[in-house]
Amino acid sequence: MRKIVVAIGGNALNKPNEKPTAEVMQANLLSTTAYLADLVEEGYQLVITHGNGPQVGNLLVQQDIAKNVFPPFPIDVNDAMTQGSIGYLIAQTLGNELTKRGIRQSVACILTQIVVDSEDPGFQHPSKPVGPFYDEKTAIELEASKGWTVKEDSGRGFRRVVPSPMPLDVLEIESIKKLIDSGTIVVAAGGGGIPVIVEQSGLVKGVEAVIDKDRASALLAKLIEADDLVILTGVDFAYINFGKKDQEALRVLDLKRGRELIEAGHFAKGSMLPKIESAIDFVSRTGKESIITSLEKVDLALKGESGTRIVP
Amino acid sequence: MRKIVVAIGGNALNKPNEKPTAEVMQANLLSTTAYLADLVEEGYQLVITHGNGPQVGNLLVQQDIAKNVFPPFPIDVNDAMTQGSIGYLIAQTLGNELTKRGIRQSVACILTQIVVDSEDPGFQHPSKPVGPFYDEKTAIELEASKGWTVKEDSGRGFRRVVPSPMPLDVLEIESIKKLIDSGTIVVAAGGGGIPVIVEQSGLVKGVEAVIDKDRASALLAKLIEADDLVILTGVDFAYINFGKKDQEALRVLDLKRGRELIEAGHFAKGSMLPKIESAIDFVSRTGKESIITSLEKVDLALKGESGTRIVP
Repeated sequence: MRKIVVAIGGNALNKPNEKPTAEVMQANLLSTTAYLADLVEEGYQLVITHGNGPQVGNLLVQQDIAKNVFPPFPIDVNDAMTQGSIGYLIAQTLGNELTKRGIRQSVACILTQIVVDSEDPGFQHPSKPVGPFYDEKTAIELEASKGWTVKEDSGRGFRRVVPSPMPLDVLEIESIKKLIDSGTIVVAAGGGGIPVIVEQSGLVKGVEAVIDKDRASALLAKLIEADDLVILTGVDFAYINFGKKDQEALRVLDLKRGRELIEAGHFAKGSMLPKIESAIDFVSRTGKESIITSLEKVDLALKGESGTRIVP
Repeated sequence: MRKIVVAIGGNALNKPNEKPTAEVMQANLLSTTAYLADLVEEGYQLVITHGNGPQVGNLLVQQDIAKNVFPPFPIDVNDAMTQGSIGYLIAQTLGNELTKRGIRQSVACILTQIVVDSEDPGFQHPSKPVGPFYDEKTAIELEASKGWTVKEDSGRGFRRVVPSPMPLDVLEIESIKKLIDSGTIVVAAGGGGIPVIVEQSGLVKGVEAVIDKDRASALLAKLIEADDLVILTGVDFAYINFGKKDQEALRVLDLKRGRELIEAGHFAKGSMLPKIESAIDFVSRTGKESIITSLEKVDLALKGESGTRIVP
């Protein structure tokens, strides 16, 4: 049985400009989980990770609106909340899809804390914008009162920026492995995991940061010895010269060429770049392969008939 | 190794009148988990359940304040979010307490859906107040527009009331059992579980209801074949004539006497009554024993030296 980690984007739950209701998320997940159930039917053992960008962003804005009544939670706690809501909806929707097909395989979501290094250079250079937009005056006040870093965001106002450190370890890895070994479809590492540091004393502490969910997925895939890391995105392939006249779909990409194309700036920061880097990370550490493709093509891609395959 | 389910109240995280910040919850959990770690040190295998009353209430109020920007989530999704936030904080704080003591035992939180019957009489008579207070006009509008049931609440305004059906099954039970068997301390069934019904088609669907967390804990304890169900509360014992001059602590309570005392109205609805009923439920179905006591006395109670012990 091929064990694969499939990383779903946060946009698979809430498309831009959609109303972010639970009903909309459920409706979006209906089609997402139908594709995933196809993979289950074909005998793949799935481990599902997911993004939480839009959802945790909404929570932060919501908490900001209500801040005079309830103090907002830090990002680690908000990440935990989105692991709850999204994990629940994925588990339930996928479970129903399996039931429809007469497949009896259980699905379970494990809350996942992911360790980062407090010395990660990301903490010196917070770069990931999160939460509401503020005017300049409020932004400066928040920097002073909360110790935040705040940056101007493309002419739309000021936003808090937080570190995006590299994931190093998964605290719940043994539990995740045990459930996988027993044949359970596991939902884990949601939103890139709840970011924590391990202090010198050995104690674990949540930090205000955002871990890239593809990097977290690559780490999880390595730790559970997955046969394949599948990173889903809005396009069927990674491209060179993306969006230009001479754009070219990448079908097979070895590590050397992948690194060259990164150097040449072919992949967009915050979009395709972390996916390519995560795939390369997994492939270079394990000698296995990784796929970047769309949900619609994932089945074909696993058969080698679509998608971008990153190979050693 | 004695396997015990320990049910923590939602108030163990946020005491009334405290600011409901993550820091306050963490500080409260420091003492809670110290008592739980004592039990781990003595060799008990713990399964931890928790309430979410104050936390899910806060989320509902917060979402109501921000409702013009984001549509509020239904209760099942909010329950899932509190399983995330509270589960994370319990797992991390208890994990740290074990680390301090040199105990290497992993803690994991599993999101838990709990099945209720759509024909449960609770659905005909919603009784559990949730979320914000409304004035009468708004309350009547909400009844009409959302199909809610709204009731006047002790002169403080109107609140939505939702059903509190009996828990029947735990969807993730096999995963929970596997982790317990592997020696993991499992946090599960938070907030009484995410309430779902199983439709005739076999499909699972979230419902807007609140499952009593002690009843859910009793069900979980039965399903995992726990040796003891420990229900924590603010007092060391259950009492007869509670709060009166002749109040008397109950030390051992058999099923027959327990039922008589319920009949005689000795236990407060929404407070001690569901605890006694849940304990009786577990003991009568399993022939095992159950304890109702405070966090401070739980260790003594397990040795038979404090607390109310419900016996067959």
